[in-house]
Amino acid sequence: MSASAERPTPVRQGRPGYNQETVLRRAIDLFNAQGYDATSVGDLAKELGLTKSAIYHHVPSKETLLAAALDEALDGLSAAIDKVVTSEPGLSAHERLRIAVQESVLVLADHLPAVTLLLRVRGNSGVERAALERRRVIDEKLATLVQAAVDEGSLRDDIAPDVISRLLFGMVNSLVEWYRPEGPVHADEMARSVAGLAFDGLTKAPPAPSVAPGALDS
Amino acid sequence: MSASAERPTPVRQGRPGYNQETVLRRAIDLFNAQGYDATSVGDLAKELGLTKSAIYHHVPSKETLLAAALDEALDGLSAAIDKVVTSEPGLSAHERLRIAVQESVLVLADHLPAVTLLLRVRGNSGVERAALERRRVIDEKLATLVQAAVDEGSLRDDIAPDVISRLLFGMVNSLVEWYRPEGPVHADEMARSVAGLAFDGLTKAPPAPSVAPGALDS
Repeated sequence: MSASAERPTPVRQGRPGYNQETVLRRAIDLFNAQGYDATSVGDLAKELGLTKSAIYHHVPSKETLLAAALDEALDGLSAAIDKVVTSEPGLSAHERLRIAVQESVLVLADHLPAVTLLLRVRGNSGVERAALERRRVIDEKLATLVQAAVDEGSLRDDIAPDVISRLLFGMVNSLVEWYRPEGPVHADEMARSVAGLAFDGLTKAPPAPSVAPGALDS
Repeated sequence: MSASAERPTPVRQGRPGYNQETVLRRAIDLFNAQGYDATSVGDLAKELGLTKSAIYHHVPSKETLLAAALDEALDGLSAAIDKVVTSEPGLSAHERLRIAVQESVLVLADHLPAVTLLLRVRGNSGVERAALERRRVIDEKLATLVQAAVDEGSLRDDIAPDVISRLLFGMVNSLVEWYRPEGPVHADEMARSVAGLAFDGLTKAPPAPSVAPGALDS
């Protein structure tokens, strides 16, 4: 299901220096900075130094831009999770879940403005409600993966699986508040850190024994 | 530092059934539901079935309500962190940090609407900027605690302490998106679950050895 029944048609060249893709990027930044509802097409035109009619040359409506942004985030997240769930038959649920966490961080880093916008959607319109429905489907797949890992005995069972799922992806999603992939921590490293914290915990592991267990028998 | 130089005076009785505290609770809920900037005193009056002048009998301005809400959240969080940092001299930094995480969850559960509002503040006014500054001070104390736990060797040192701090409290703060303390999971249990996930990890610990290590010597 798409957040928009009608996606913007591929890039159309308008005024030199602007194409639909540029307009979309700037619109997403503006929606994130001042809120989607509070942003008018006039605001976007002003931001881009264009007239409103020049904006309408690129995109039919503000909602088309929102739908394109939400689809970008949702397509990335769906593809990552579907790949993890369906491919590589030899993997345990624990391994799949760990990869799903890492892949989610990578998608978030690759599509940070679009994912930020997605996480702020509250369902104020048909486009927003369709996006929330797609998010719910993704969350359900992740919750199923958590349950599978609990069932195979590889995940702690003293926390309810749905609570694990929400805390885990709550931590992943909280990255939008502060993480910037162009900063000192590369997205791959961040993905490993998030998964490391979540699966192995923050407490330092005791040092490996210097004597192998079997050595005591001799 | 207070988010408001001028806090509302203690409860004043107005129209039967409403006092300042009730107005504040309903205002916080309304701010969270439709955004602070998008909510007018007229909206609040309508929500409460009062006239605007009846609202002004209770509170001098919309901003006074915001300041009171943000102070409520910040006072709770500050008090919890200060208690953990300064008291009980026998505790390790690791134990203090674990308690700080648990106490943060309890404050969040106790003051959920106010903390939710705090986490959405972006600095659009003097009151909001003062609240962000108080949040920054709290975040710094938590980051110092993380660093102390790394320094004492009890916390993993392959993730930068500031990243640990942000992921840890990103997970705590993500609770406002879905956790309801009146639901099936009690706040104490949630506090233990969050700390358990963060410090011990999701991976199930291997079963304890059925034979005590010393038994091999006999």
